[in-house]
Amino acid sequence: MGFDRLIENIIKKQNPTVAGLDPKLDYVPASIKESCFKTYGATLEGAAAALLEFNKAIIDKIYDIVPAIKPQAAYYEMYGWQGVRALSETIAYAKSKGMFVITDGKRNDIGTTMEAYAAAHLGATEVEGAELEAFGADALTVNGYLGSDGIDPLLKICSERDKGIFVLVKTSNPSSGELQDKKLETGESVYESMGMMCESWGSELVGKYGYSAVGAVVGATYPEQLAEMRAKAAHTFFLVPGYGAQGGGAQDAKNAFDQNGLGAIINSSRGIMCAWKKQGLTEEDFAEAARAEALRMKEDILSAIGEIKAV
Amino acid sequence: MGFDRLIENIIKKQNPTVAGLDPKLDYVPASIKESCFKTYGATLEGAAAALLEFNKAIIDKIYDIVPAIKPQAAYYEMYGWQGVRALSETIAYAKSKGMFVITDGKRNDIGTTMEAYAAAHLGATEVEGAELEAFGADALTVNGYLGSDGIDPLLKICSERDKGIFVLVKTSNPSSGELQDKKLETGESVYESMGMMCESWGSELVGKYGYSAVGAVVGATYPEQLAEMRAKAAHTFFLVPGYGAQGGGAQDAKNAFDQNGLGAIINSSRGIMCAWKKQGLTEEDFAEAARAEALRMKEDILSAIGEIKAV
Repeated sequence: MGFDRLIENIIKKQNPTVAGLDPKLDYVPASIKESCFKTYGATLEGAAAALLEFNKAIIDKIYDIVPAIKPQAAYYEMYGWQGVRALSETIAYAKSKGMFVITDGKRNDIGTTMEAYAAAHLGATEVEGAELEAFGADALTVNGYLGSDGIDPLLKICSERDKGIFVLVKTSNPSSGELQDKKLETGESVYESMGMMCESWGSELVGKYGYSAVGAVVGATYPEQLAEMRAKAAHTFFLVPGYGAQGGGAQDAKNAFDQNGLGAIINSSRGIMCAWKKQGLTEEDFAEAARAEALRMKEDILSAIGEIKAV
Repeated sequence: MGFDRLIENIIKKQNPTVAGLDPKLDYVPASIKESCFKTYGATLEGAAAALLEFNKAIIDKIYDIVPAIKPQAAYYEMYGWQGVRALSETIAYAKSKGMFVITDGKRNDIGTTMEAYAAAHLGATEVEGAELEAFGADALTVNGYLGSDGIDPLLKICSERDKGIFVLVKTSNPSSGELQDKKLETGESVYESMGMMCESWGSELVGKYGYSAVGAVVGATYPEQLAEMRAKAAHTFFLVPGYGAQGGGAQDAKNAFDQNGLGAIINSSRGIMCAWKKQGLTEEDFAEAARAEALRMKEDILSAIGEIKAV
């Protein structure tokens, strides 16, 4: 229930971070691309095969130290259905290595359609009486602009299948305030209002660590709002983008955690995938470099929050 | 520029409606399913093949009278990458028949990631110097919760490739008001604020009929808000869900149009796909029934708004 499985992975590995797998073809070393293009042509299929190989090599090097991956759907969709197949295979591979998988799709729609998204990403689809998993992630990011109709089908699947969702509350991008920071006549901001809806949506789905299956996305680039929401949304687990390439540091991210070092997971995407550049290595060393960066990031966050304690 | 191509299709066919292709396997006649399961097994692949055949049969029967289709991504994703391939093939097939294609994906993300979604759904992906279209729709629905960073990459592609977007403003579902109707301290509602952002985002992309490439989703189930936004967002073309199965009628939808019968397109999904049920026919007659319902809907809307005039 809730994010218990993720939290247990975090405690065991003493690492509250998630590796964002948002692979652009530009990030993939020439040797992998050449081999895939030779087999499948310089096509969407060839590109998708290269992405999958790249992802698997990173997963192989980090699964023992990083509790979760977060593939971003957009970077797979841009390679067509072939890319989406690579997303599906990436999810399956990471799960086979014991990682918790958060599909970053920011899906949203009205109730009947959200049932389809919930089945697609977290549940199963019935075909002739058999239940087939389409993508089978452990959690999905969603956008709550449509209100509870669009969230209810997800709550049902979270409860039935031990899954989770992260609702966008205060996003990490520069323009996030254009709507999210607007003040309501009650004095609350739009993001605060959305954060409190998360508390309410998750109220029946609280797990043994005190966090519900309805998490929130709150960016490390807005540390004050992160601290504010941590204090207000006590049962809401945070997925925190914006560390690293987007400018957030460990002292910013620290605001996402409770006194036991629980309550949040910090994402790094480009920082992990392109670590070889920063480390002055060659692109062929991308997977080793990703591991070194994952370890550095873990130590960086732990130095700010201390030991992560089961409660 | 803007939605000129769509508007010209609407004027030529004197039909301001779009057929929503949200195919569930339950809607597909037994004969199509049996044949596809025989070839591909009772698998996601077999199900996806059945959806594609169902869609093509409907498109064949309506493309001469209906200007556009709106496939809803969720109903394809629930059948895995195989379903997403059927989405891609549905889009290509409808375009080959001269229809305007609106992918209903409600995508949203920060800027760098939105570039990937824009390339995926409206633009092209570069592989070894070649530009390959991943999905190649004419327009995409998006969610503006993240502000202009998440919209700018779409504006660029709209301008370069003559595409359009529809931003969620006031959605058709019962709970849409939970966030969207909240009043800001300025007295504006959240949906009104979002609608005015659409006017602003589209200001450089206005086409020859006075409507920009940045449209808005406003539901027929909220006719007062539809009239309000039509008056306030004069350059914003509306995609209007909620007609038919969700409860909106022609007199409600009428509020979306300007005095020339332009400015909006009304969607029907289940009404078209499941028309055989309402008409007392057998499921094998689904495509003929879809055509009859498309004609009935066209006449219903035209009887409320009158002739659609080029201006």
